[in-house]
Amino acid sequence: MSTPGTLYLLPNTLGKTSGNATHPEEVLEIIRSLDMLIVENIQNATRFLQWVGNTIPEFKIEFYPINKKTSDIDLLEYIKPVKKGRDAGVLSEVGLPTIADPGARLVQLAHKYHIPVRPLVGPSSIFLALMSSGFNGQQFQFHGYLPLDDKACSKKIQELEGQSKQHDISQIFMETPYRNTAIIKRILSQCNDFTRLCIACDISLETEEIISKPIGEWKKMQKHTDNDLIKWNKRPVIYLLYAH
Amino acid sequence: MSTPGTLYLLPNTLGKTSGNATHPEEVLEIIRSLDMLIVENIQNATRFLQWVGNTIPEFKIEFYPINKKTSDIDLLEYIKPVKKGRDAGVLSEVGLPTIADPGARLVQLAHKYHIPVRPLVGPSSIFLALMSSGFNGQQFQFHGYLPLDDKACSKKIQELEGQSKQHDISQIFMETPYRNTAIIKRILSQCNDFTRLCIACDISLETEEIISKPIGEWKKMQKHTDNDLIKWNKRPVIYLLYAH
Repeated sequence: MSTPGTLYLLPNTLGKTSGNATHPEEVLEIIRSLDMLIVENIQNATRFLQWVGNTIPEFKIEFYPINKKTSDIDLLEYIKPVKKGRDAGVLSEVGLPTIADPGARLVQLAHKYHIPVRPLVGPSSIFLALMSSGFNGQQFQFHGYLPLDDKACSKKIQELEGQSKQHDISQIFMETPYRNTAIIKRILSQCNDFTRLCIACDISLETEEIISKPIGEWKKMQKHTDNDLIKWNKRPVIYLLYAH
Repeated sequence: MSTPGTLYLLPNTLGKTSGNATHPEEVLEIIRSLDMLIVENIQNATRFLQWVGNTIPEFKIEFYPINKKTSDIDLLEYIKPVKKGRDAGVLSEVGLPTIADPGARLVQLAHKYHIPVRPLVGPSSIFLALMSSGFNGQQFQFHGYLPLDDKACSKKIQELEGQSKQHDISQIFMETPYRNTAIIKRILSQCNDFTRLCIACDISLETEEIISKPIGEWKKMQKHTDNDLIKWNKRPVIYLLYAH
């Protein structure tokens, strides 16, 4: 039996950035050394490799597609060469693979076939938002996207607020960027004035903005003008609620 | 009113390491520029600064202590110079500040006084473990430490397994390193054979070991020898359970 290769979990950036405030030098070195990459979108992946710089020439890199619909049979094909000794990397479109992104099933298969899985340090908007919120970092829950349906969404927000209060949990969730204004209005109209809301926007980018305060204070601002809410629209936001 | 400084949230390493697979160059540059640091332990903080290298001479850096007992009055004193324009950094003993570590109240005060809070990218054992587990990264919950009391601990594990199964959540928790063997035995004896357990140990260090498989398979290994469990003892571990 040959020694297996390693499946590296590669962090992407959180958006367009000229500098490098997100990737340690040793992580860049590993990315530069890989000639097998499992990626969501090949064009975006090559753009990322250009940002990394000094990689293996693109034409020598084999790219394999991954998304939430990729079959286990295809994933198994990706695993085979790694099992035989080749190193591979999995890269998502934004931030860390497998977290709010595809890749978890691939990692599960790697474990099944005793392939070492090595996570590399990089930016997670969820974690950077949690750090910056000032909310409880000893207990927290990430919920992904809230339900699309109005009623279900309102019910979910109510649940999150209640559970946060009862169990002292920081609640973290996301929303499709073009619906930011709508979800913020919903949260403000629905939650208790003393519940805290943190909006963490464009994290790690030059336009980063992180605001954390009680709903009551968010509301005062909204009274003056809705423009203050519109500015969040179409920008990537992580939301946090805390009601303890 | 003067322009306030920035409160930087500084990542520490996850243990002794000679290389740098954890800190982006721009993050190191920011750490090097700071002359006001709020830290858990001054001796360990200066050791970290030596690892960073090329910092401001130590005798020119002002250190302020922070722990979970630090009073809000003291924290407010730390905030005052930042409010007046000085930059400061908060550093925990291991990994990211505020996450399973002190600092959240300080960040909350910074927001209250309209001081920009800027989170810097670095290693989080919790996130690196979650990525590597192959479990659900779309929904997860972090619970900190499990209860010390035997009965309460068993009940908590049962709850985590049940909620994971019911709501498709990855459950993440920690244990004091010298109790690792005991908690693993408890999990194996208590959980369903099909429930998955991931043990992520010494993350980002040379001795990193990440194993993720069903309880049934963990048990088979344990039958051969208890040594396989003893090896985890006194090493930092992140635990994940997933029962979907």
